[in-house]
Amino acid sequence: MPADPRPTIADVARHAGVSKGLVSFALNDRPGVSRESRERILHVAEELGWTPSLRARALSTGRSFACGLVIGRSADVIAADPFFPAFIAGMEDVFSVSGQVLVLAVATPGRHEAETYRGLAKDRRVDGVILTDLRAGDERVALVAELGLDAVTLGVPDQPSPFSSISVDDGAGIRRAVDHLVTLGHRRIAHVAGPEEMLHSRRRAIAFQDAADAAGIGSQTIPTDFSAAEGAAATRRLLEQSERPTAIVYSNDLMAVAGLGVAQRTGLRVPEDLSLTGFDDAELGRHLHPSLTTVATEARQWGSAAARTLLAALEGADPQHLTLPDPTLIIRESTGPAFP
Amino acid sequence: MPADPRPTIADVARHAGVSKGLVSFALNDRPGVSRESRERILHVAEELGWTPSLRARALSTGRSFACGLVIGRSADVIAADPFFPAFIAGMEDVFSVSGQVLVLAVATPGRHEAETYRGLAKDRRVDGVILTDLRAGDERVALVAELGLDAVTLGVPDQPSPFSSISVDDGAGIRRAVDHLVTLGHRRIAHVAGPEEMLHSRRRAIAFQDAADAAGIGSQTIPTDFSAAEGAAATRRLLEQSERPTAIVYSNDLMAVAGLGVAQRTGLRVPEDLSLTGFDDAELGRHLHPSLTTVATEARQWGSAAARTLLAALEGADPQHLTLPDPTLIIRESTGPAFP
Repeated sequence: MPADPRPTIADVARHAGVSKGLVSFALNDRPGVSRESRERILHVAEELGWTPSLRARALSTGRSFACGLVIGRSADVIAADPFFPAFIAGMEDVFSVSGQVLVLAVATPGRHEAETYRGLAKDRRVDGVILTDLRAGDERVALVAELGLDAVTLGVPDQPSPFSSISVDDGAGIRRAVDHLVTLGHRRIAHVAGPEEMLHSRRRAIAFQDAADAAGIGSQTIPTDFSAAEGAAATRRLLEQSERPTAIVYSNDLMAVAGLGVAQRTGLRVPEDLSLTGFDDAELGRHLHPSLTTVATEARQWGSAAARTLLAALEGADPQHLTLPDPTLIIRESTGPAFP
Repeated sequence: MPADPRPTIADVARHAGVSKGLVSFALNDRPGVSRESRERILHVAEELGWTPSLRARALSTGRSFACGLVIGRSADVIAADPFFPAFIAGMEDVFSVSGQVLVLAVATPGRHEAETYRGLAKDRRVDGVILTDLRAGDERVALVAELGLDAVTLGVPDQPSPFSSISVDDGAGIRRAVDHLVTLGHRRIAHVAGPEEMLHSRRRAIAFQDAADAAGIGSQTIPTDFSAAEGAAATRRLLEQSERPTAIVYSNDLMAVAGLGVAQRTGLRVPEDLSLTGFDDAELGRHLHPSLTTVATEARQWGSAAARTLLAALEGADPQHLTLPDPTLIIRESTGPAFP
């Protein structure tokens, strides 16, 4: 394999007829180099087109110029959930300009979550991490601080945190979905939620309950692991009830699409017999029949904002707490008037 | 932030009462250290729990212990395609044990593909890369070789390549789908293909044509960018024809699901009026109504095999060319007998 053609400090030293140590001192503007030597060395370095390598900068600054994202969901859920790829694309929009790279780890049976953060910190593989899917009493906040990493959390942790955060009021999205259904005359609405231990999923469930209570309607919530399989199972449970709901608010699009399949299989027409709403605005939802009414979050913008905030923290900025604009409700064909 | 608590060479030197240089020589088993000093230094190092840091290994070996994956598809397609997350999870199954990390880059407007590979190589951010979505005359093979990176290609390039490859005969999956439809009596079958410039998509289109020709049936192929939107548009074009196909073989599940929506919107029943097959076996396909007949590829195993092969190449193994088992056809509800 051909060698890297970039000139090194050794090349500069050879051409200037001095030691590598002297070149390094001159280039780093450290004392102990005569003005004459320094000028000759800088001239040679410029002629050869020498630039400090990232590796050298990493060594002198102790930084790795990499940021980490550890995804703790199962491979199946990741494969089906459009959030992470869009979020990663947004981070890349920023890192591609800043020169950082993204180190991605998936917690697998061979690499548990805490181990993964320890590994990234131990070898300074990354300067900072982005913490997604915050849980109640999330032990990662203290762990990451203890490991000396910088971080940005998606959402505000339910405990003291030294880190910046970027939040979206996903509850506002759920409230809009419920309000839309109430306006259509629905009086029995169910919520197929995400995992109870995840703060965003809990926020959505609380927003659902509050909106339903405010409207004075019947409501119930079933937690799931966000997968299509559990979304389908929750839908079957809801539809088997003697007084079944006339509308279901899902906490992601994947489960809403699976729920649509279950409803159609049961012989129910959507939206004539049952209204459904999703959450995410995955592209696929536009092409289904009926197309999916859903809450649109801007995962890509969220990724960019998180990356920018992490870079600011790495530059020494004080912790910031940003809130992105509220998600919007995209009304399509899967919601309609409640049957009489 | 607390400092890294791991003992350094400086700690060992201080405790042993010798210079850092001597410690380094002793720990690296280089000549010029008396047996007595070496033993004392090793003893102190062991007592302090000193282990070589990855950073130090990286410096002494010139390796970064990181592998790169550059995804060149649009964020929308990545967000909707289950292949990459499953493939990444498979890579992580291997890297989590080997101690490598995965550096992920998405080609974005701010970071074009070739630039991205150059950036990864220039600063030795990665030791090697995995090349996916090979194109006809793909310039990445020569670029990556020129940059001095190791690589593994998914599929065999259509040009000389110094790299190992891991292939799956996706053509075999398409042939099985066509054979299944022919057995059900279909005589006009269409193929909604991926991009013509991608080798795997081209292989699938050729396999489709060969299988249709062998069965002596009418066939046509429409290329797309793999997105749900183009899959839906291709389906509309096919269904508007005066002699429309009775079955459509899609090159991914995403387009098949979008095509199902188009068919249902047109008033066609699936499979009574139109049979559809997908490719990928995305989880969602099992929960649709009708559930999706599809070709199952093992993206996660493919990711593991690619990671293992790249690690072998980094250890100096000769290029290997592995072929994984043929994909299988999962028959569900979206295919049925051709209407008379």
